[in-house]
Amino acid sequence: MIEQEFLKRLTVKTDTKVVMVVMDGLGGCQNESGKTELEAATHPNLDALAKKSICGLTDPVSPGITPGSGPAHLSLFGYDPLKYEIGRGLLDTLGIDFDFTPDDMAARGNYCTIDENDIITDRRAGRISTDRNIALCKKLDGIEFNGIKIFVKPVKEHRFSVIFRGKGLVDKILDSDPQKEGLQPLDAKATSSSAEYTAQIVNKFIAKARGVLKKEHPANMILLRGFSKMVNLPKFQDVYKLTPGCIAVYPMYKGLARLCGMDVLKTGDTIESEFAALKENFQKYDFFFIHIKPTDSSGEDGDFSRKVSIIEQVDKSIPLLTELNPDVIIITGDHSTPAVHAGHSWHPVPILIYSKKCRFDRVERFNEIDCIAGGLGRIPARDVMPIALSNAGKVLKFGA
Amino acid sequence: MIEQEFLKRLTVKTDTKVVMVVMDGLGGCQNESGKTELEAATHPNLDALAKKSICGLTDPVSPGITPGSGPAHLSLFGYDPLKYEIGRGLLDTLGIDFDFTPDDMAARGNYCTIDENDIITDRRAGRISTDRNIALCKKLDGIEFNGIKIFVKPVKEHRFSVIFRGKGLVDKILDSDPQKEGLQPLDAKATSSSAEYTAQIVNKFIAKARGVLKKEHPANMILLRGFSKMVNLPKFQDVYKLTPGCIAVYPMYKGLARLCGMDVLKTGDTIESEFAALKENFQKYDFFFIHIKPTDSSGEDGDFSRKVSIIEQVDKSIPLLTELNPDVIIITGDHSTPAVHAGHSWHPVPILIYSKKCRFDRVERFNEIDCIAGGLGRIPARDVMPIALSNAGKVLKFGA
Repeated sequence: MIEQEFLKRLTVKTDTKVVMVVMDGLGGCQNESGKTELEAATHPNLDALAKKSICGLTDPVSPGITPGSGPAHLSLFGYDPLKYEIGRGLLDTLGIDFDFTPDDMAARGNYCTIDENDIITDRRAGRISTDRNIALCKKLDGIEFNGIKIFVKPVKEHRFSVIFRGKGLVDKILDSDPQKEGLQPLDAKATSSSAEYTAQIVNKFIAKARGVLKKEHPANMILLRGFSKMVNLPKFQDVYKLTPGCIAVYPMYKGLARLCGMDVLKTGDTIESEFAALKENFQKYDFFFIHIKPTDSSGEDGDFSRKVSIIEQVDKSIPLLTELNPDVIIITGDHSTPAVHAGHSWHPVPILIYSKKCRFDRVERFNEIDCIAGGLGRIPARDVMPIALSNAGKVLKFGA
Repeated sequence: MIEQEFLKRLTVKTDTKVVMVVMDGLGGCQNESGKTELEAATHPNLDALAKKSICGLTDPVSPGITPGSGPAHLSLFGYDPLKYEIGRGLLDTLGIDFDFTPDDMAARGNYCTIDENDIITDRRAGRISTDRNIALCKKLDGIEFNGIKIFVKPVKEHRFSVIFRGKGLVDKILDSDPQKEGLQPLDAKATSSSAEYTAQIVNKFIAKARGVLKKEHPANMILLRGFSKMVNLPKFQDVYKLTPGCIAVYPMYKGLARLCGMDVLKTGDTIESEFAALKENFQKYDFFFIHIKPTDSSGEDGDFSRKVSIIEQVDKSIPLLTELNPDVIIITGDHSTPAVHAGHSWHPVPILIYSKKCRFDRVERFNEIDCIAGGLGRIPARDVMPIALSNAGKVLKFGA
């Protein structure tokens, strides 16, 4: 596995185009029928592509490790997910259209309900409406202490993001959310003396919010978690000499893509509209990340047949992709979300990399089991970008 | 992948013998027939060996990285090619029979033609004859400044090697060769203040050479590039407890082998004569590196059928190797040079490792596609030496 710092020496700008389609949580497991979701689905277009491609399995972080979507995507994009840990607060906040600066520290917030003894009776304040959330956030947004400005931005239902902006903030702070009802909210505690000042600011903000929300039952208190400073990722432009565009529906993936230097392109909500957005922007970029969420959502819901039908839906859109004739096509997932496990898992993820320059193998069907015999073998997800870029003629020879 | 420093603790001297046959650029890709060079070639002896061997694919440097021959061979020999970067000057100079010392700095030189305004009109001085080159090098060889002695040694046609010998030389110097005609030769510029002194010496030498060559049209000037100090590689004797011999026709590979501690054995130019040299020296060494160049040259020329016929030629010599009954036989390439790409590539390289101790797999034909299913899987080339040495009984158990 090559480090980005090294790869950067070898990459060059060319006219060739690379499209990476990430079906979130694509990898599956056999259900009682003995077939995985990909084996059960009918996907002639993916199979036709597999025949001309090099296939295999990837490990998002390392064999046996179940990744979240953040580290799993970072790996696919070629970043070391252990080097660039993206805190929960930042990850959740990435999706909102917020202009982060290196002075910012984000946290994920929940509105909650506390009783007269400060005991949390509902961690989600009865899942208040998003409209109510918006109104409450307006009351908290813009508070300032000691030159630290605090932004409070609504997400959905009871969820919001809070961003502390100012010099000297350190994110080594424990959650104020005890993660259980029947307990009191915690003070935000510094885990390093360097974060004492930041913890004071956070606690001042929580106290202020408690006052503002006093009469707003059921949303009469806030819980904060996942304090995290901005992460400064090397940019695709710099490391890979790419002009990258992101086509995604869910905010978090757009945010992640922005961190990597991608432009976020306009798209509708459906799979077809995402591929339509690809066609529309095809001339303007040389790398596209297309993110397809419902393979993961259906897997998380344990809905095997829905996941099968979503795979079949994606398959129907593949001709929209191939008719654009990109030089390299990558089709994979960020991790596995087998419906039978109803959650992310550690199972390696099927992948195909198509290019005219690849040494194709004998895999004829795109699924986890056939991919075992693929020419890529089992590789770390972080190797995907160098392989794809070489197939696109974008990497110079190393040494004489 | 184990580091050499660690492996060194476990290796022991034994009577067993290991032969590594490197067909340069062996890995190929499918042409319009749908077959790779190895698939298209008839090689019953290699296939018979594959049946008794463990097969697989190697990545010379890392998946997706196209290596030069220098780093690719270093990896096969078990060295980290990112740790030991061998500069162009040294690599080119390795082939001449020159006794390098740690005080030496090498550069690649060209005789060139300049006009009355110092503009380069021919970077290769009309490719003067090697005899002329030899005569000119004699005039420049042995110049000294401030105790730095300068050796100038002819290679072929307009090419020569220059070696600066003395204390305190630092190779952080830019080429004097502008790589284009219509420009003036450049001064050798230091890229680090530590190399200022060295740059002065280099420029003094260039000025002196200009004077000496003034009336030698068309070879009336020199261009230098790839300044590189000697690299001190750990020796096979020390790391692996081997007594290694190299059988190669091309100078660069002999030079690389010398850097690793190998004796360079006398051989004729043909493949058969290389195997004859193996037979002749078989009792004297316990490790042999046999380098076969034309698989790469034919690949570089984009000549699929010539590469096929060279593979078939090597196959005919395999009985000469097997009848010697070495304990371990490695057959592989240093990298891929698919004829359809007419150059080095990033595709992994087929390998077989034969020994009586190996746990053979089900591979029956030695080619890129069958090797996918081999028992070695896809491994870094740097793992080849430890596996081969263990098969030869030369590596002790680690831990109790």
